[in-house]
Amino acid sequence: MNPIGLVSMQFARPFGPEHFALLPRIKGLGFDFLELLVPEKGEFELASMRRALAEAGLGVVLAARVNLQRNLTSAEAGPRQAGVDYLKYAVDCAVALGSDIVGGPLYGNPLVYAGRAPTPVSEAERLARFQRSVDGLGAAAAHAAAAKVRLAVEPLNRFETDIISTARQGMELMQALPPSVGLLLDSFHMAMEEASMAEAIRLAGPRLLHFQANENHRGFPGTGSVPWPAVTQALVEVGYTGPLSLEPFRRRDERFGISFAQWRPPQENEDESLRASARFLREQLHLAKAAPSRRTN
Amino acid sequence: MNPIGLVSMQFARPFGPEHFALLPRIKGLGFDFLELLVPEKGEFELASMRRALAEAGLGVVLAARVNLQRNLTSAEAGPRQAGVDYLKYAVDCAVALGSDIVGGPLYGNPLVYAGRAPTPVSEAERLARFQRSVDGLGAAAAHAAAAKVRLAVEPLNRFETDIISTARQGMELMQALPPSVGLLLDSFHMAMEEASMAEAIRLAGPRLLHFQANENHRGFPGTGSVPWPAVTQALVEVGYTGPLSLEPFRRRDERFGISFAQWRPPQENEDESLRASARFLREQLHLAKAAPSRRTN
Repeated sequence: MNPIGLVSMQFARPFGPEHFALLPRIKGLGFDFLELLVPEKGEFELASMRRALAEAGLGVVLAARVNLQRNLTSAEAGPRQAGVDYLKYAVDCAVALGSDIVGGPLYGNPLVYAGRAPTPVSEAERLARFQRSVDGLGAAAAHAAAAKVRLAVEPLNRFETDIISTARQGMELMQALPPSVGLLLDSFHMAMEEASMAEAIRLAGPRLLHFQANENHRGFPGTGSVPWPAVTQALVEVGYTGPLSLEPFRRRDERFGISFAQWRPPQENEDESLRASARFLREQLHLAKAAPSRRTN
Repeated sequence: MNPIGLVSMQFARPFGPEHFALLPRIKGLGFDFLELLVPEKGEFELASMRRALAEAGLGVVLAARVNLQRNLTSAEAGPRQAGVDYLKYAVDCAVALGSDIVGGPLYGNPLVYAGRAPTPVSEAERLARFQRSVDGLGAAAAHAAAAKVRLAVEPLNRFETDIISTARQGMELMQALPPSVGLLLDSFHMAMEEASMAEAIRLAGPRLLHFQANENHRGFPGTGSVPWPAVTQALVEVGYTGPLSLEPFRRRDERFGISFAQWRPPQENEDESLRASARFLREQLHLAKAAPSRRTN
């Protein structure tokens, strides 16, 4: 059965040693691993985090954080090199923490969270971005492969990046990269960009390395419009055995002027909903395996 | 039957007299009205646009364009006043063009398209934004009511604004405004932010003034994951007889690095898909009226 995890941001950001007491609680809610943001250098001591995770019986999967200063697809050499260096550093963190995956929008070029508006891109620049992504991810992938870590490239919705927003766009990049680089699909972004989530999962097929099981509105899985039976059946169809992580940090607060794009700490104890979502997803996966009309390809 | 319209941006942006030849074509594709961006001052002559629309047999609904310089909810008096003045100007344009609705994110505060990243907002500032929205929309509404024009306030997804993203947030604002101000709901934004589109439509009820019938991915309606039977049944339930407009300008181009948030002109002749989408929506509305288990409230 696929391991099911919870993102550290559900509770706190940044997440450090002062939050170690949360780890047994996360385990107790039914999660198998913690999805942890790659720490900035010196943010916390990796060995103590690894120890705390092991004591709680939790695995770990790393999520990389890019920005315009470390940006594989930048037209400028400085940020481009910093982007490659950062991914290598993230791989080293993964080794130190015991994660075999580093995922996220590894190609860079953030939009809204970097305060960047969508702007026209020439065909020459579009092709150059492709080549920079291949070169940068290729360099990081060699470092990752030597460490037995895989890179999971995440398509983001149109407002968060202008590089890859669908599985199809992601697979175009995958064709130019070794099998140690794969895709991370997130049903929040898919709900916005894909015509069919199931088709997107089938398109990724064996290149799917990590799945983030988020609702369309980023509330608790099972409270929105994501077609979970179709999603889990497609995951079973393609033989996906990797991690599924939850990032339901929208918070239940829908007053005027509350921004859903701005991270906020929990407003209430969410334990029961988190526990229910983990169980819900586990049961969906179980049922997907029992579905009668599964494809056999 | 609700009038069904198409946004002018489907073909060109800006849309002016050089595009008048498109108007009979739009009518011929099965559309009843044009959704037109409020022209900037001097952008085109309003009387000639009105004449061209009438000759093509098309109605018109106006969509307002806000930015940080004309921004009802701004903390600064200048942009705030410019926001009110702009809405009054938009109402005057509506009268000149023959539209009885001015819709859009009238409250202002754009995020990604203004190159603004989500930032924390204090509780005092959140409440101040509410009051500024009420004051600004109230002032514009008085001008609009005198002209028999209604203002339709549109919730946008979390990446496009930090003011209103759901029907619930919108209705909180509606409680403080006269009935000449209502809501514009867009199923693209709803697909991201609402737990249930049908519930959101029921929540808006008689305050719903305009509906934008867009797919989750902004492709042609009927090619994505929006639950059209549930949406149209909810529209029928609340007795909605207003306009439905289509804005499917994503374009069919999913190569690496193509940004879906960046407006682009058509890449191919889209007439048959536009015609099919208009018919599809009309038939859905027809079927919704024939649905057996409609609520009677």
